[in-house]
Amino acid sequence: MSDNPKRPSPLIDCDIHIYPSAQNPLEPFIPTEFRQALAQGQGSKPSHGYCNPHGVDRRDVDLTEPREAIRRHLDQYNIAYGVLQPQPGYDISLTHNIEVGNAMARVWNDWQIATCLPFDDRLLGSICVNLNDPMAAAAEIRRVGGHERMVQIVGTGESTHLYGHRFYHPVYEACQEMGVVFALHPGAEGSLHSTTPVGRPSSYFEWHNSLPFTFQAHLNSLVIEGIFERFPKLMVLLVEAGVSWLAQLMWRMDKNFKGLRVTTPWLRQAPSEYIFNHVRLTTQPIEEPANPLHLFQMFEMIHAERTLCYSSDFPHWDFDDPHRAFPSKTPAPLLERIQYSNAAELYGLPSLLAAQP
Amino acid sequence: MSDNPKRPSPLIDCDIHIYPSAQNPLEPFIPTEFRQALAQGQGSKPSHGYCNPHGVDRRDVDLTEPREAIRRHLDQYNIAYGVLQPQPGYDISLTHNIEVGNAMARVWNDWQIATCLPFDDRLLGSICVNLNDPMAAAAEIRRVGGHERMVQIVGTGESTHLYGHRFYHPVYEACQEMGVVFALHPGAEGSLHSTTPVGRPSSYFEWHNSLPFTFQAHLNSLVIEGIFERFPKLMVLLVEAGVSWLAQLMWRMDKNFKGLRVTTPWLRQAPSEYIFNHVRLTTQPIEEPANPLHLFQMFEMIHAERTLCYSSDFPHWDFDDPHRAFPSKTPAPLLERIQYSNAAELYGLPSLLAAQP
Repeated sequence: MSDNPKRPSPLIDCDIHIYPSAQNPLEPFIPTEFRQALAQGQGSKPSHGYCNPHGVDRRDVDLTEPREAIRRHLDQYNIAYGVLQPQPGYDISLTHNIEVGNAMARVWNDWQIATCLPFDDRLLGSICVNLNDPMAAAAEIRRVGGHERMVQIVGTGESTHLYGHRFYHPVYEACQEMGVVFALHPGAEGSLHSTTPVGRPSSYFEWHNSLPFTFQAHLNSLVIEGIFERFPKLMVLLVEAGVSWLAQLMWRMDKNFKGLRVTTPWLRQAPSEYIFNHVRLTTQPIEEPANPLHLFQMFEMIHAERTLCYSSDFPHWDFDDPHRAFPSKTPAPLLERIQYSNAAELYGLPSLLAAQP
Repeated sequence: MSDNPKRPSPLIDCDIHIYPSAQNPLEPFIPTEFRQALAQGQGSKPSHGYCNPHGVDRRDVDLTEPREAIRRHLDQYNIAYGVLQPQPGYDISLTHNIEVGNAMARVWNDWQIATCLPFDDRLLGSICVNLNDPMAAAAEIRRVGGHERMVQIVGTGESTHLYGHRFYHPVYEACQEMGVVFALHPGAEGSLHSTTPVGRPSSYFEWHNSLPFTFQAHLNSLVIEGIFERFPKLMVLLVEAGVSWLAQLMWRMDKNFKGLRVTTPWLRQAPSEYIFNHVRLTTQPIEEPANPLHLFQMFEMIHAERTLCYSSDFPHWDFDDPHRAFPSKTPAPLLERIQYSNAAELYGLPSLLAAQP
């Protein structure tokens, strides 16, 4: 992809990773009664066992103090709002010990609210929840979801159930009630199950290629199980799972809706309508076809002017620079929707006009 | 999709289902020593448990004598060659009893050669194999693969391993040696595993939407595990799994190849190159975007002029009429590649000029 001329217009970045650090430790937020359990390994989670040979952090970023690194990132790209993905808090749902998982969700949220959000007014937080205990997750969403800068909950593609399963209804009810987005970020895909319907990939490369399968399965489940009929205000954000698979999945769903809707009488619209009204996707890692025209065509197929929100994945290895990630001829109005307005509308943030200096 | 004017040009149909019938029974081909085992239920296989509420056969087709029905289908659309998918022979690999599965593979092949292929010169057969015993499968490929009208082996998306796994090397070696294509057809996805990386869909509709995930996983595995480096003459045909997902998968694979190829030093080309050189997809059920232009654009993205082969799925419910399945403005040369020449080159059949009356 070639360079765009640098635009002065502010951006919203929907995927910035923040880690605890020596200057900003998590430990003080852990309740006394859980410290021993954690010391005993009761906070353990399964691992997928794949390893990026290059590591997962950018080597050109000083991560000694992650908050400072993030501030420099916001300044460099004129990012008006950056949505934090607390790491590894977002995969707390996989904690074997459910009670410890519930406690750690609260820890990650208290830590964000006390030490991360105050650090920079541009930062927004993600509510960590234990989706393996939906009632506890709903309670946690109600506890902190009223904080005006905690804009979404975050879970991972790996989960005990497909997200359309009624097991999760209490979570969606709480999200809808508190007005927070349900975001999914890759986390530990391949830890509970394999990342394919058949078996485990044998390399990090093959595993990484397969991550969109899980997200497609969840989206299929959310739509076909009628989650958006039951929870008509629910908004879902699929983070870091690619975007170009959406065209084929929608087309197949809509075609099958014609022949098979008798099996799902609760659906009142074509699947693509639920997606356009309730689902957003972040852009990184954006697909890079050899012919950039193909990416434009794909943007039209998936209604990118409504569905896509820019994300950088800072500070990870496959970071997308907002000035290089999109083809140089992307029309300015489309780029503006992707880089600001879609996320502003999703999160209820000030419009671009209000955000401009 | 609107009608094309009827073309006189002959077609090749890569997916025609044939069943045993009263006039053409399978039983005489079962060796004496296995009849008791089958009567005892030793030929049993797991089932996925999903059910199409409308049934899976077209109601307008008289299937009393499947061979006659197929002959009428070939006549109606001027189909020069029709590739049989013997049903349920193609999922013989899932038979619990491996020895019985091996025997039944031979039965299905002997039945095709003795009673189906002689019935009409236009018919081509698919070698049934027990992929759960790769050495036996290889022996069966060598036993019947020399028959000039047995042009491929057929397996299902459901399998014990991803198809890039070295477990299957003996099968690919035999395919390459005998010059037969390795075809995959949906069969019993959801019987050994669920059809998603996370869990089981809860309706036939959701299940059907999810079938391409399995095929994408197998293709990813075949390419990244280096099957086409080890078996440079192997050709793979993905039947009835959709086609439009190929763009995103190739783009993601090629992008990751840049960053992660150190993990797969055996790969000497970008993943998309292996796909263009070794993989073909059948068209049915073709995606039907609301805007037919989008399907043309998709055809360009996936190099349809090399990769796609027409299939009808006769006599199943979601049959694609060759005169209605493609947008009415599809350029004739592209349509000709899809409806004849790609399959002719794949199977080594006479060129279109030679086939024309």
